[in-house]
Amino acid sequence: MIRIGVFGYGNLGRGVLDAISQNEDLQAVAVFTRRNPNSIRLEYPEIPVISADDASQYKDKIDVMILCGGSATDLPVQGPEVARYFNIIDSFDTHAKVSEHFERMDEVLRKSGKIGIISVGWDPGLFSINRLYMSSILPEGKDYTFWGKGVSQGHSDAVRRIKGVVKAVQYTVPIEETVDRIRKGEKADFTPRQRHKRVCYVVKADNADAERIRDEIINMPYYFSDYDTTVNFITEEEFDSRHSGLPHGGFVLRNGTTKGGNNHIMEFSIKLDSNPQFTASVLVAYARAAYRLYKNKEIGCRTVFDIPPALLSPKDYMTIIKEML
Amino acid sequence: MIRIGVFGYGNLGRGVLDAISQNEDLQAVAVFTRRNPNSIRLEYPEIPVISADDASQYKDKIDVMILCGGSATDLPVQGPEVARYFNIIDSFDTHAKVSEHFERMDEVLRKSGKIGIISVGWDPGLFSINRLYMSSILPEGKDYTFWGKGVSQGHSDAVRRIKGVVKAVQYTVPIEETVDRIRKGEKADFTPRQRHKRVCYVVKADNADAERIRDEIINMPYYFSDYDTTVNFITEEEFDSRHSGLPHGGFVLRNGTTKGGNNHIMEFSIKLDSNPQFTASVLVAYARAAYRLYKNKEIGCRTVFDIPPALLSPKDYMTIIKEML
Repeated sequence: MIRIGVFGYGNLGRGVLDAISQNEDLQAVAVFTRRNPNSIRLEYPEIPVISADDASQYKDKIDVMILCGGSATDLPVQGPEVARYFNIIDSFDTHAKVSEHFERMDEVLRKSGKIGIISVGWDPGLFSINRLYMSSILPEGKDYTFWGKGVSQGHSDAVRRIKGVVKAVQYTVPIEETVDRIRKGEKADFTPRQRHKRVCYVVKADNADAERIRDEIINMPYYFSDYDTTVNFITEEEFDSRHSGLPHGGFVLRNGTTKGGNNHIMEFSIKLDSNPQFTASVLVAYARAAYRLYKNKEIGCRTVFDIPPALLSPKDYMTIIKEML
Repeated sequence: MIRIGVFGYGNLGRGVLDAISQNEDLQAVAVFTRRNPNSIRLEYPEIPVISADDASQYKDKIDVMILCGGSATDLPVQGPEVARYFNIIDSFDTHAKVSEHFERMDEVLRKSGKIGIISVGWDPGLFSINRLYMSSILPEGKDYTFWGKGVSQGHSDAVRRIKGVVKAVQYTVPIEETVDRIRKGEKADFTPRQRHKRVCYVVKADNADAERIRDEIINMPYYFSDYDTTVNFITEEEFDSRHSGLPHGGFVLRNGTTKGGNNHIMEFSIKLDSNPQFTASVLVAYARAAYRLYKNKEIGCRTVFDIPPALLSPKDYMTIIKEML
């Protein structure tokens, strides 16, 4: 059994426990939290909830710690701390700061003699791997990444911060017409507005002005101003019954050309009922890989680009060859 | 520069030269053939054509030899011979005999101190990797592989062996209705007949009986009898103008479920104007990986399951992280 620790208990941490329950070779040892451990009730009552301050006491009881905090403030601080004692997996997803995070984690992990795989999930993660496979195989070409239809947490949070907004969710939606053109082989550049639209469902306070809220949303720089945005005001009942899930998805597509003008299209796509559960499922598969690398005496920081696919599977090598090659 | 040798010169060998021409870090050193080298004219006149018997003289001039023969009779013999002197890549695709081929190649490669990656291409190859990623991430689920629409060489050959057939091509075509059901999340078993149909275009000899040829095709055991097959008789002119390409494609899809009944669909698909050129493009990317593994003193037989994605790219690691993660 590979012994897993879960550091941070939100949607992602919950998903990690669910994912572990689907894998017979993995075992959840404990959940670590910065909140009062007594305030958290897990759906798996046999798993203890421990104060994050006491995590280091578990250093011989956990093979891989999965960090489930956010990229903005949690992971840059928690990662280096936890990596002093544990092999780690994280889902660091601030694209612009990944190399900085990599260097920071690599330094700590080499000192502690542990291994870590950062930026695991689907984007960054599976989509990144596909961008790499596709561009390596078809060097002459252009690739596209589309997200959605799905809930963007960052954009939903931005809407919720507007005065008078009680509840809100934002769906990122690929623009079908552009997708069709690309899937037919077109290699043009498309603006953000041509690629995605944004659809918001908002529950407003009774006395709040709908038009003012709509204006604040659609003109919000960076988040909304470069996109066509639709704002729908709905009742709290409708919101709770139809918009409380966290579906997501998207795809990576490459249009490539080989000698003589032959065209080739490669595409990887996902469609998810639950973004955090799926992301968590990717994290636990990579926790298995981290465990195996560590057993093989490898240390330092890695990304999904470094991991041989075979290390992700619970099955032994000759079985994989027979069943999947 | 990574120096590549091409062993065998048919559609695939030709594709390998084309693929090398698109990669600045790769160089084609020579083509090796069992035919009379003077009988072969390459589209790249600067590359010499050498008798296969003299291949071993090139052992210090070639970093990786790409074997471009067929799986039925060429690769089981040529692989072990060539692996005595060279790092190799092959596209061995007889699924049922892969583990046998693996063992045989591993033994030779360990003795010669070389590295080999076998069964490279798209299926086996990219599709295999995707089956592995998908099943590792979503252990509860079911996956499907569909091929086409595209030309099956084996089935086309089988039709061409029928008396009275002058030219023939067979397209394997996924059945849209089944594909739609699976893409909507269905996890049923489907028969071969429900999954693919077969469409043949045949040029017959003037005096040959069309009905007899049709009967022989649609009743041919293993190749056609388990499928709905359409046979179209056409003129040689139409055949040459519309059916001389080698397009192919297909996809791997997994329908998986996580805790609480949440469904997730992962799909990897390709659509290729030229099957041999695309397959060759995969082979040369893995030749780059083989070269790097060998430089790192690794020896023995590998499959695509063993290869870290980063080794496929000509770009350096921190560039990959910045551009693709």
